[in-house]
Amino acid sequence: MTASSDTKKVFRIGMLGFGTVGAGTAQIVLHSRPSLKEKTGIDIQIRRIAVRDMKKHRAVSIDPALFTSDGQAVVDDPEIDIVVEVIGGIEPARTLILRALKNGKAVVTANKALLATHGKELFETALAHGGSIGFEASVCGGIPVIGALRDGLVANRIESIHGILNGTTNYILTRMVEDKVSYAQCLYEAQSKGYAEADPSTDVKGIDAAHKLTLLSNLAFHSIFDFSEVHAEGIDGLALDDVRYASDLGYAVKLLAVAKRRNPGADPEDFPGGLELRVHPALVPFSHPLANVRDVNNAVLIRGDATGEVMLYGRGAGMMPTGSAIVADIMDAARGSARQTFTKLQFFQNPREDMPVIPTDKIRSRYYVRFNVDDRPGVMGKVATVLGGHGVSIASVIQKEPHETGFVPIVMLTHLSVEDRFQAARAEIESLPFVRKPSAFYRVED
Amino acid sequence: MTASSDTKKVFRIGMLGFGTVGAGTAQIVLHSRPSLKEKTGIDIQIRRIAVRDMKKHRAVSIDPALFTSDGQAVVDDPEIDIVVEVIGGIEPARTLILRALKNGKAVVTANKALLATHGKELFETALAHGGSIGFEASVCGGIPVIGALRDGLVANRIESIHGILNGTTNYILTRMVEDKVSYAQCLYEAQSKGYAEADPSTDVKGIDAAHKLTLLSNLAFHSIFDFSEVHAEGIDGLALDDVRYASDLGYAVKLLAVAKRRNPGADPEDFPGGLELRVHPALVPFSHPLANVRDVNNAVLIRGDATGEVMLYGRGAGMMPTGSAIVADIMDAARGSARQTFTKLQFFQNPREDMPVIPTDKIRSRYYVRFNVDDRPGVMGKVATVLGGHGVSIASVIQKEPHETGFVPIVMLTHLSVEDRFQAARAEIESLPFVRKPSAFYRVED
Repeated sequence: MTASSDTKKVFRIGMLGFGTVGAGTAQIVLHSRPSLKEKTGIDIQIRRIAVRDMKKHRAVSIDPALFTSDGQAVVDDPEIDIVVEVIGGIEPARTLILRALKNGKAVVTANKALLATHGKELFETALAHGGSIGFEASVCGGIPVIGALRDGLVANRIESIHGILNGTTNYILTRMVEDKVSYAQCLYEAQSKGYAEADPSTDVKGIDAAHKLTLLSNLAFHSIFDFSEVHAEGIDGLALDDVRYASDLGYAVKLLAVAKRRNPGADPEDFPGGLELRVHPALVPFSHPLANVRDVNNAVLIRGDATGEVMLYGRGAGMMPTGSAIVADIMDAARGSARQTFTKLQFFQNPREDMPVIPTDKIRSRYYVRFNVDDRPGVMGKVATVLGGHGVSIASVIQKEPHETGFVPIVMLTHLSVEDRFQAARAEIESLPFVRKPSAFYRVED
Repeated sequence: MTASSDTKKVFRIGMLGFGTVGAGTAQIVLHSRPSLKEKTGIDIQIRRIAVRDMKKHRAVSIDPALFTSDGQAVVDDPEIDIVVEVIGGIEPARTLILRALKNGKAVVTANKALLATHGKELFETALAHGGSIGFEASVCGGIPVIGALRDGLVANRIESIHGILNGTTNYILTRMVEDKVSYAQCLYEAQSKGYAEADPSTDVKGIDAAHKLTLLSNLAFHSIFDFSEVHAEGIDGLALDDVRYASDLGYAVKLLAVAKRRNPGADPEDFPGGLELRVHPALVPFSHPLANVRDVNNAVLIRGDATGEVMLYGRGAGMMPTGSAIVADIMDAARGSARQTFTKLQFFQNPREDMPVIPTDKIRSRYYVRFNVDDRPGVMGKVATVLGGHGVSIASVIQKEPHETGFVPIVMLTHLSVEDRFQAARAEIESLPFVRKPSAFYRVED
């Protein structure tokens, strides 16, 4: 059985999981079924919903007979065309999705962690069985960025992606930058408002954003990347002082997800061709479109060779935005378009020979760096000399008034440098007797 | 012959016209054909190109044998699957497109003026013959906003669209707002840079933006609208003084295209249900995402009931961005997805009974208004009294120092009002003996 055809008009949905996103999806399907049918000619029906706890109260009024505790029965049900996985986590989601795909079904999922860590296995299985995996809901909630990359920008060679892909951290950073409130206080507020989990580490350490960057890169650069290939740093060590100094220099601090094509350069050691894949706090000029993405919003700035920069912006998460993306993927699967996401096995068999992921110490960036030094003459000159000795050139400097605890912060912005040269200079400066460890550094994206 | 199928892999393109956008399209097709084939499994070939002047030098190196002066031969060629119309204007584009559609071909066009004035005839013909009209390139160049409305946001009831849809006027307004340069000077600069035509009226009078709003509304509200239903005002009467006063109040001036659903209200005279469709200069708070769309860029802010606000942003025009959108539409037609844009004839047969276009005098807005008055006591009180008598309530007032020519500008922002009440108050105030005509007014979108 295939999940789609030009003639079939009724598509039956089996759901795995019924948490917040599942309930949002069901609510949209129940409410919008007539208008979806009118718009597209396709009728979608929820046939079964597998849940762990059959007794739990459900916010959406659904026929109780649809619920089952047997996920396998859902993916094996021959009447079901499209399986929507909203359990989250690796298992049992992975096993159930694989089984659904082997049964020829189309799968729609919001599970970025699973796709970013087991993408190769899952997409290969989909391709081998003529099925598909829709994952619009995995990245930036209701913002149709997967569709834009697959369809709208299909004629482009994608040069780079810069994304604010995590709403929790963007909320925290917005508060830190605009109101100069400490990280700890902002995190506490985000937790109180329900924007951050009790254990916020997946968000604040950049893991969630790295999962999403993995999925965007799959489409943008036509390969299947793994989460382990993304260099991820979080915002949990960010000091309010650095946010203040960045503001003084005209920059906001954002948790950026960056995927950037780099052509081979003149110096093969410094500039190997390939792809930079990284998530980290970064300084962004206040005039940059991404600097103005506030609160829990997400945005993705895509540079294509034909379009130039295109940005998509909106709410990156939540019950209804994510439900909207899942229903869009259901329609995409029903129309048969979802199968066209990854069409060739050679994407998997021929992994990026000409475009390897560039190791972190070879990425190329401008840097913000702050050294806390003793207040004595000649210090600035020595710091600058070490940077120069490593070939790192300084774009601007602020030396602040002595800090209340006695040291003087020296804040510098560098010109473009290769990461290992900058880090070698930083380490040497940290070892100078008048410098107090640790220094702080952040990459700058202009 | 139908233009698409699941099995067909080679699609032949016939082009009508070969100006800037046509050359950009051809350049992308020639350059990206291998990668498009790898991504999608679909191979596209340019088979014929109809041009008016066979002798003209072409910027793209194309086999001269492909050129013909006979447009009809292109649309009648049985080997051609997809016709790309980039002639512009109404005729002969309309006749050729109708013939192509009747021949069962898929059509891709960047011709917003044609679709906004003859959409019903063209889309009906496409539907009747199993063909399609792709028009991503007609709105906002390479920004995939048509795709977003049709596919990514399919599960949403669209509540409103706010767009900056014309790059020329946005360039002029950016200069006026940021640099406080007069309209005439900005227009001259825009013409010198090639951003504005020698006859700029289509752009500066809001006609181009109204064409595009017509097309966006077709998809967002599932009907075929006509350009004549859009209320369009231009920026050509905008005084620098009003730009300055708006800035003082915290607002940028933008040429906004607005389509807004309004539910029936308690007062049937003031609040009939329906759709507001309007293009005019408007005050937008500096903190609003659209206020930060600068220079020739375009942006569309779409509010869906599930997603909330989603914004798409980028270059709205140009050879390569528009070419990118045309090639995306070619792939869409080749995959068969384009036929799913308008699937039901009842869109045309049952025109918006429940959602008429609201006449301009019944739209509801906040207003900016400036009266130039004689500098004498009691004037402010009289102006405010007239407004109050028409039920228009004042949100804020600035009375400026006397102008060098002797009068005093009174600038007011109102609360929400129905247009006819506001205009009646404005007319009455203009007739007061101490008021100098004309006053200036702009709508405010928050």
